[in-house]
Amino acid sequence: MPDFALFAGSANPQLAQAIADRLGVQLACCEVQRFPDGEVSVELTESVRRRDVFIVQPTSPPVDRHLVELLAFADACRRASAERVIAVVPYFGYSRSDKRVRRRQPIGAAMVASLFQAVGIAHLVVVDIHTPQTEGFFTIPVESLTAIPLLAGALRDRLPRDAVVVSPDAGRVASTTAFANELELPVVVLHKKRESARQTTVTHIVGDVEGRACLLIDDMISTGGTIAESIAALREHGANREIFVAATHGLFLENAREKLHDATEIFVTDSVAQSWDRVNVVSIAGLLADAIQRV
Amino acid sequence: MPDFALFAGSANPQLAQAIADRLGVQLACCEVQRFPDGEVSVELTESVRRRDVFIVQPTSPPVDRHLVELLAFADACRRASAERVIAVVPYFGYSRSDKRVRRRQPIGAAMVASLFQAVGIAHLVVVDIHTPQTEGFFTIPVESLTAIPLLAGALRDRLPRDAVVVSPDAGRVASTTAFANELELPVVVLHKKRESARQTTVTHIVGDVEGRACLLIDDMISTGGTIAESIAALREHGANREIFVAATHGLFLENAREKLHDATEIFVTDSVAQSWDRVNVVSIAGLLADAIQRV
Amino acid sequence: MPDFALFAGSANPQLAQAIADRLGVQLACCEVQRFPDGEVSVELTESVRRRDVFIVQPTSPPVDRHLVELLAFADACRRASAERVIAVVPYFGYSRSDKRVRRRQPIGAAMVASLFQAVGIAHLVVVDIHTPQTEGFFTIPVESLTAIPLLAGALRDRLPRDAVVVSPDAGRVASTTAFANELELPVVVLHKKRESARQTTVTHIVGDVEGRACLLIDDMISTGGTIAESIAALREHGANREIFVAATHGLFLENAREKLHDATEIFVTDSVAQSWDRVNVVSIAGLLADAIQRV
Amino acid sequence: MPDFALFAGSANPQLAQAIADRLGVQLACCEVQRFPDGEVSVELTESVRRRDVFIVQPTSPPVDRHLVELLAFADACRRASAERVIAVVPYFGYSRSDKRVRRRQPIGAAMVASLFQAVGIAHLVVVDIHTPQTEGFFTIPVESLTAIPLLAGALRDRLPRDAVVVSPDAGRVASTTAFANELELPVVVLHKKRESARQTTVTHIVGDVEGRACLLIDDMISTGGTIAESIAALREHGANREIFVAATHGLFLENAREKLHDATEIFVTDSVAQSWDRVNVVSIAGLLADAIQRV
Amino acid sequence: MPDFALFAGSANPQLAQAIADRLGVQLACCEVQRFPDGEVSVELTESVRRRDVFIVQPTSPPVDRHLVELLAFADACRRASAERVIAVVPYFGYSRSDKRVRRRQPIGAAMVASLFQAVGIAHLVVVDIHTPQTEGFFTIPVESLTAIPLLAGALRDRLPRDAVVVSPDAGRVASTTAFANELELPVVVLHKKRESARQTTVTHIVGDVEGRACLLIDDMISTGGTIAESIAALREHGANREIFVAATHGLFLENAREKLHDATEIFVTDSVAQSWDRVNVVSIAGLLADAIQRV
Amino acid sequence: MPDFALFAGSANPQLAQAIADRLGVQLACCEVQRFPDGEVSVELTESVRRRDVFIVQPTSPPVDRHLVELLAFADACRRASAERVIAVVPYFGYSRSDKRVRRRQPIGAAMVASLFQAVGIAHLVVVDIHTPQTEGFFTIPVESLTAIPLLAGALRDRLPRDAVVVSPDAGRVASTTAFANELELPVVVLHKKRESARQTTVTHIVGDVEGRACLLIDDMISTGGTIAESIAALREHGANREIFVAATHGLFLENAREKLHDATEIFVTDSVAQSWDRVNVVSIAGLLADAIQRV
Repeated sequence: MPDFALFAGSANPQLAQAIADRLGVQLACCEVQRFPDGEVSVELTESVRRRDVFIVQPTSPPVDRHLVELLAFADACRRASAERVIAVVPYFGYSRSDKRVRRRQPIGAAMVASLFQAVGIAHLVVVDIHTPQTEGFFTIPVESLTAIPLLAGALRDRLPRDAVVVSPDAGRVASTTAFANELELPVVVLHKKRESARQTTVTHIVGDVEGRACLLIDDMISTGGTIAESIAALREHGANREIFVAATHGLFLENAREKLHDATEIFVTDSVAQSWDRVNVVSIAGLLADAIQRV
Repeated sequence: MPDFALFAGSANPQLAQAIADRLGVQLACCEVQRFPDGEVSVELTESVRRRDVFIVQPTSPPVDRHLVELLAFADACRRASAERVIAVVPYFGYSRSDKRVRRRQPIGAAMVASLFQAVGIAHLVVVDIHTPQTEGFFTIPVESLTAIPLLAGALRDRLPRDAVVVSPDAGRVASTTAFANELELPVVVLHKKRESARQTTVTHIVGDVEGRACLLIDDMISTGGTIAESIAALREHGANREIFVAATHGLFLENAREKLHDATEIFVTDSVAQSWDRVNVVSIAGLLADAIQRV
Repeated sequence: MPDFALFAGSANPQLAQAIADRLGVQLACCEVQRFPDGEVSVELTESVRRRDVFIVQPTSPPVDRHLVELLAFADACRRASAERVIAVVPYFGYSRSDKRVRRRQPIGAAMVASLFQAVGIAHLVVVDIHTPQTEGFFTIPVESLTAIPLLAGALRDRLPRDAVVVSPDAGRVASTTAFANELELPVVVLHKKRESARQTTVTHIVGDVEGRACLLIDDMISTGGTIAESIAALREHGANREIFVAATHGLFLENAREKLHDATEIFVTDSVAQSWDRVNVVSIAGLLADAIQRV
Repeated sequence: MPDFALFAGSANPQLAQAIADRLGVQLACCEVQRFPDGEVSVELTESVRRRDVFIVQPTSPPVDRHLVELLAFADACRRASAERVIAVVPYFGYSRSDKRVRRRQPIGAAMVASLFQAVGIAHLVVVDIHTPQTEGFFTIPVESLTAIPLLAGALRDRLPRDAVVVSPDAGRVASTTAFANELELPVVVLHKKRESARQTTVTHIVGDVEGRACLLIDDMISTGGTIAESIAALREHGANREIFVAATHGLFLENAREKLHDATEIFVTDSVAQSWDRVNVVSIAGLLADAIQRV
Repeated sequence: MPDFALFAGSANPQLAQAIADRLGVQLACCEVQRFPDGEVSVELTESVRRRDVFIVQPTSPPVDRHLVELLAFADACRRASAERVIAVVPYFGYSRSDKRVRRRQPIGAAMVASLFQAVGIAHLVVVDIHTPQTEGFFTIPVESLTAIPLLAGALRDRLPRDAVVVSPDAGRVASTTAFANELELPVVVLHKKRESARQTTVTHIVGDVEGRACLLIDDMISTGGTIAESIAALREHGANREIFVAATHGLFLENAREKLHDATEIFVTDSVAQSWDRVNVVSIAGLLADAIQRV
Repeated sequence: MPDFALFAGSANPQLAQAIADRLGVQLACCEVQRFPDGEVSVELTESVRRRDVFIVQPTSPPVDRHLVELLAFADACRRASAERVIAVVPYFGYSRSDKRVRRRQPIGAAMVASLFQAVGIAHLVVVDIHTPQTEGFFTIPVESLTAIPLLAGALRDRLPRDAVVVSPDAGRVASTTAFANELELPVVVLHKKRESARQTTVTHIVGDVEGRACLLIDDMISTGGTIAESIAALREHGANREIFVAATHGLFLENAREKLHDATEIFVTDSVAQSWDRVNVVSIAGLLADAIQRV
């Protein structure tokens, strides 16, 4: 029995398995069930006493179910005398709720941080979290990993020499630049104006896209709206060649698949379980396995 | 503007409205939405500054969604300077997870208690919670109400004079006796043996049911299995007349409606929103309104 | 010096010594004294720095003295840089105060849980605690042991083949069944009605006791009232042979010895120090030594 | 019903009654009982909902019983939705355990502070606590009162004009000086050398006592040893007239009454219930009533 | 005596006085001194018992002194039974340390949040804090005010009709847009590339500045480097008319005054005490007075 | 890489280096800088993951800067997954603020204790802290070391045989006696009367100093006022020979050097960095190295 235990929550068992394979260990045994009323039931079927416990559980949709399951896991581990409970949450749900837009709202990510700490989670591993400030919501150590080098590596041979790397808005410039540096390509930034809660228009493009291939970057693809709109704007400004899309987290909700029809190729990681055969999936299992080894 | 605010979560707005009507106040304004990825978004659209805030939200199925929504509500209230946040949770999800059956399990209800306290809930109102020990999971005050007198009141004129009040197992004797005392009827107790995780058999009946009308009591009806099995046992032991069923919380999950076809009449409260027209619904709005007034 | 230290509080040094013998270690050195004003003074006379510390201290009567002594021990350990403080509390005082019977009462066991956690106790070992829900009062891990197999082992050769195992009321059916399963004997349940705060009467007996030897089970014997009353009821219902009594915790308070004169044999453990030569004492030292080894 | 409730613990109900009389209120109703096993049972028999609750309970011997009773009171109040729980502890047990004399000891007073805060006590009122640093053990507000002006007032007419005020050791100079200032008399300080754990000898007397009447001051009289020894030293140095003794807290443990036979008159307060008719009791009821009014 | 007390820390007593004047109250009395060793000494010379206490103290340079003084104030208030302690910190030191740039760094703002909460600060009022996510570092309510409308009001009549509002980098677009909306002027965004830790270059200008008057916006002016560099870039791109500068917080450290010589006019608020006669100071006293009234 | 890391804060890097030398390790790498606005920036440039981290930082003047730097260090360590953070604070700033002298003051040392615990400091090492009660302000273990044997060792050969050891007031008798015992010399105690906040007069001298050499003892020398006054009093009472002065902590603030001109020799430790060539500096590096080894 190794001195740590790696458990797979129900959100992404394939990723957990891949991490275990990388580490050369077996996944620890547990049973996660739902009662007829939907209450989650977790049972660890091997001892965790004085062992470090890693629980791999992205809090992807259905977010609340995955979140509460993770909390229940942690509670079970704590009561079973685990040495430390480390949550491996490659996709961190509620991460975009990092501030109050209007007064009298919750701060979802800060609330989740409180919940994690309330059940005794002692350490957190995340990948490309939406805002770097999120770490400050925690007093426990947060291992903030990035899949950018991995995605860049997968893209390197696919991209034409003259491609540009595009940030879909001013807020994504930092990670777009990280991508561009990895690929040694120039950065282009779209500027947007918010028309309404759900509607924005691209008003400026900083950098030249005419006749260039583009690589559109985002941390996550939810319904694909932002990406679709950015593609349209790039097309309008003369980007008449391939448009690649890369994001760490691919949720592809609602009619995302349809909206993204004009993307040449789409690259995401397996932070969230992927089933769409059109996307190129870059595995972060090695990245997470390394982090687990370090921790 | 009254000095308290009463909000309706999305789990049972009808009950919240009924409570507001009893109190002669308007429900406080808020917007609860779900993003495409299922993350909940709460906005209080009126001030709660220095007011006591009551949030009416049974954590009925889908339990994790209703639970996280309640936590988000509390976080919003706390950040908006509410004086105190009082959760009114007539049906308390995870209440049956009050101990570890096997080692290395969570204690769901204790975990939920930690979550409530982590987001600053300062007071809790519950109705006929599964185990009285649950109060000890909290350090905040818990207002434990019972709907038994209300249900007994509604049953009083319906029951034949010679009816008996039946506890479906040894663990429910206390609340069955409370019912029986209200109705001045004798108690009968079924004894069961657990055959397997999902299968139990009635082995003894303490008390006489032959030729008697029966009132079967439970705190909640989930899939109706316990009740259906108890009815069968009563029938076998000669209970050949009406069999009434009363429970505080009616979930009616899976094929519960079918399983309960042999029940003469079913009485539940509106702790959980009810839509089955075969059940008699006794409202606990007044009970909760009184509690809110006291608090 | 082993990597853990085992201290004996003043409540049951014999048991602590027996555990140490089983573990093949010496009890760690300490001095526990009382000042003239009754304040407890604890001094650890050997180093506990970075060692796991086990303190054996049932909180038996005088309960408050033993409780505060344990808390003082924990405070001393914490200030002396103990790695972890593990309280070994085979008999857990205030465990019957697990819910509010009337409003505006404390929940004694939950309060004690808060006190334990306030002085930094990191782990708890208990034996046959009154209610399994008590674990939920703690966020620290609780090792819940049972002496039932040990007691059953000691009884096995003493009991006639046709004996029955009797639960003194509906609330003790679970542990009685555990006993009966160990001994492969049938279960009998007494049903009681509470006449007043201190007075109950047996109203039904589920199962046949006529002409049978009986084994009466309870988790603890305090003043012996419940047991005496149950024996009388069994006699009335024709149990005219031996009546054995077994309980994990034997306090024998007030005139318990007198009340139990009609019991054929009495079996208890040494969770509480025993001095009555009429009882058969089954030692739980091995059970606790195993638990300590695991922890 | 006033907006606060004043409860009497069992340690000093006379003092609680005297405070209530001063405040012109009735003591709030409660029942404090002990089960046969010595566990305390507290029931508040009137509502404390949203009221400030004052519990009068010196933690005098038997100190652990009085302490746990106070904690149980606080737990009951908190669960019953008291607005704030204020402990009125005129004599604070364990106050002399304010530092570690040897390593690997608890700090009793700091531990008690943790316990108070763990059960939700929000405010503390004490009288002439042994060390002023004790306040720092708490994060809640501590109302530190002194009975010195009251005692001085009672002594003023009894003392001869030429009396001196004597501190029994270098550590009590501050409160002795406070007394002396009230009485406009000179200070004398005894210097001691500790011979062993229980034995000290007076080595110097700072100031002149020859032919003078003396007033010996201490914060508390426990077994009277310090005082007896100081009287002997004063006699040796020529203090051949009356020797008065004044202390805030009079415990008179063991053979204190005998040891103090050579004291001319003894003055203490009713912080601890007094039954010895030789002492002059100065009531602090008014002092505490004023503090309660302020709080 | 009003039911709240408004104290002035030593960082900006003029602002505190101006707030008091607006509220029509007197500043509460206190003495803040420094011992020869630099330790701060705070004494509240009027009662704060059960009153809400507001402490006005921007944590401007010398930041650590002002910070510790504020914490000491809060500790004094808590021990003196203040109802709630509200920190009014118009300039929040360490606010730019909101994330880890390199691993193994502190998050200064999150650390300060922990300190605030550790001494019992119950509510915080800030003005134009550097990052909106900072609120999530707190579990206490944070009143986030903005001085943008006030600054815009002061600028409105000064600015030429054809002016543009300039964001010095992509991260300041949100507040620049807020300014522009107030003034109904277009937004221009500078894009920068970081050359080294202390050196950045402007690479693009989004929007047209040629021949236009400019209003450069930032949340704070520290050494003036960012502003100076932006002015130079604007000049290079043809902005050959007035360049106004507006920021909420004006620290003017090192040779800031010199660096800003080319700015036409500078507008800041009195969040930090101002002594430079070249700047136009817009008072936020009214803004804070309103917030205090609301709280 | 050893399994612990020893960091030097900026307050006394020489001492940290001396400790490292004693332990035969290298100081761990870090960069501590101040931004132009005075905010501290800490970066650990080597990994502390799962290592015990010791930070050597006396909180000497400028006390608030050194204090906040230490807190920032601890925050960085916690976020970087240090196993335990141990603060080595040989001189503990605010230690004299250990009680409230007047009501409505902070208790500085208790506040600092809260701050330490809020940022996750798990253990504290101090030397000759002003009051032993200070330990009770913490719930973490406090290693209280004393430099008295080291100072006494350095003095032993310097002192004439007939010297006396002098306590400057009644509050320092305990440490003076410890010194005297080490040196086998008699104790003399000065008695003082406080004339005003800053002015005291010596009223009595307990013990004989005429014609004797004296060793004046204090825990710290701040501005030298107490010492200067004591020397004057000793001179007045006939101490016409050498007067040695020894203290653990030498701050020498304001015109301390001048005030101490009449001292024959001055001995202090390097708990605070020393630059005055008139003092004899006794290093506590070995003492601290031993403590670190133990921890």
